[in-house]
Amino acid sequence: MHTELVAALDIGGTKIAGALVDGSGGILVRTQRPTPAREDGETVMRAVEGVLAELTAGPLWPSVRAVGIGSAGPVDAARGAVSPVNIPGWRDYPLVERVRRAVDGRPVTLVGDGVAMTAAEHWQGAARGYDNALCLVVSTGVGGGLVLGGRLHPGPTGNAGHIGHISVDLDGDPCACGARGCVERIASGPHLARRALDAGWRPGRDGDASAAAVAAAARAGDPIAQASFDRAARALAAGIAATAHLVELDIAVVGGGVAGAGEVLFAPLRRSLRAYATLSFVRDLTVVPALTGTDAGLLGAAAAACGPLTAEKQGA
Amino acid sequence: MHTELVAALDIGGTKIAGALVDGSGGILVRTQRPTPAREDGETVMRAVEGVLAELTAGPLWPSVRAVGIGSAGPVDAARGAVSPVNIPGWRDYPLVERVRRAVDGRPVTLVGDGVAMTAAEHWQGAARGYDNALCLVVSTGVGGGLVLGGRLHPGPTGNAGHIGHISVDLDGDPCACGARGCVERIASGPHLARRALDAGWRPGRDGDASAAAVAAAARAGDPIAQASFDRAARALAAGIAATAHLVELDIAVVGGGVAGAGEVLFAPLRRSLRAYATLSFVRDLTVVPALTGTDAGLLGAAAAACGPLTAEKQGA
Repeated sequence: MHTELVAALDIGGTKIAGALVDGSGGILVRTQRPTPAREDGETVMRAVEGVLAELTAGPLWPSVRAVGIGSAGPVDAARGAVSPVNIPGWRDYPLVERVRRAVDGRPVTLVGDGVAMTAAEHWQGAARGYDNALCLVVSTGVGGGLVLGGRLHPGPTGNAGHIGHISVDLDGDPCACGARGCVERIASGPHLARRALDAGWRPGRDGDASAAAVAAAARAGDPIAQASFDRAARALAAGIAATAHLVELDIAVVGGGVAGAGEVLFAPLRRSLRAYATLSFVRDLTVVPALTGTDAGLLGAAAAACGPLTAEKQGA
Repeated sequence: MHTELVAALDIGGTKIAGALVDGSGGILVRTQRPTPAREDGETVMRAVEGVLAELTAGPLWPSVRAVGIGSAGPVDAARGAVSPVNIPGWRDYPLVERVRRAVDGRPVTLVGDGVAMTAAEHWQGAARGYDNALCLVVSTGVGGGLVLGGRLHPGPTGNAGHIGHISVDLDGDPCACGARGCVERIASGPHLARRALDAGWRPGRDGDASAAAVAAAARAGDPIAQASFDRAARALAAGIAATAHLVELDIAVVGGGVAGAGEVLFAPLRRSLRAYATLSFVRDLTVVPALTGTDAGLLGAAAAACGPLTAEKQGA
């Protein structure tokens, strides 16, 4: 990227963020607005166009050579379309074509949000310098992405690394996706909190029944809260171990709100990983917290838009 | 490969096969001998050297430019060593170095047997022309390999695609690998047959209690035999769906003795795949039988030894 810039869009069910990013991962311009997620598709697109208008009106815009989009999924990078679960007005919505019109035909790259987070962690975070990495976001949902052979592996449609919907419990509880026992069904924040409540955990006087509140209780020694985190960790470990058996990994990086629980999650995660990853080529796998935080979506969208340069920087 | 040849070794717990393979996948010279699997490591190596001696003594040997080895795993391609579960005399055995000495320093490529089968199916079999494929061998064990972006993906140690030891039932029965609920623990021939016996199925007068006998009973309408195949199919489907979510697949190819059961396996496999692969980017995945049969190991070892040429042929 050097003296050139990349424009990044991070599109989620809550907010639409935009930025201009330089070759060192510096964010030079930043803007965001709420996602009108319950409105029709054109209204959502006008919010995206509003973010783009702020970026294109600025003095740095002539230095922008490419645009990267990380979007809530599923996405279809091959066709440039998105169908985010939490934005019902967009179904097979031709986002890439619409963005391209707003950016004078600059090249536009689309990836899923899990892939974007992975690109960010590989460029600037905990996966930096690793050739084979799985990065996960454990939050309201569970997403992820892969780096293979030193390069981001978005897959043909930009959804690869979708660890949230692999089944680790084939007879398990039905998942919103239609399958059973998916990693997300066991390890996401809402499911983790719900399991604690169902097992008898009660929130404090503030009534906070979030995964963060369960984490606080677990840290204070509550065995039910700990058991719910242990179960989430077990599902994540089975999923991470599966990925390591399938593609061979050097490192697994876990971010997102639930990962903010720290050792309450990571201690049982490391323990369970030893139980599910026993073969010689998987047993040395390490799992660490993500580093890029709330800027991951923007940094990753920028990195995905200039993959080769990112790889070059890794090698440097 | 054109006018040049590749020497291939297929090393398993039962036999050691060797061949010279041409650029069209033709096998010009072939030899094999039993694996002295219970003997010490040097005795096993002498059997390999015997196979190589037959190959190197022939008139075609000067045209051989590379050697490919597909070995029972685990393998360590990075270090050129093998530790096949069924050959206890070889633990971290420096197979590549020993073979290299016997072939005048020609380049030697080592991959696991699942990866070799995958290379064969991509070159000459059911995965031909597909850029993203998972190939499985369902037999005494369950192995596999991956083609990603049009190229074999052996992973750094040559074990990638190891679908047999991903857990699809995190609370399930203990597996020989130390984990629980692995695909192999549910879907391998011996486990499939044992499950039928435990549920009350009885072999015919010949006493044959193999997976093939269970398949014959299932074909004849025995509900217990069918249920055991359904369960195996469900585990395979969950594993294949997991792989598709993680790397995006165009096709899954299933070979090995248990796949010889035909529709007794493939009908419930297709049905279960629809249950576990529901998201837009995985739901069109097709699953088909392998085509390369008993030569898969030799063809695949040859293909793995000359990957770029194989890729070039695919594009042609």
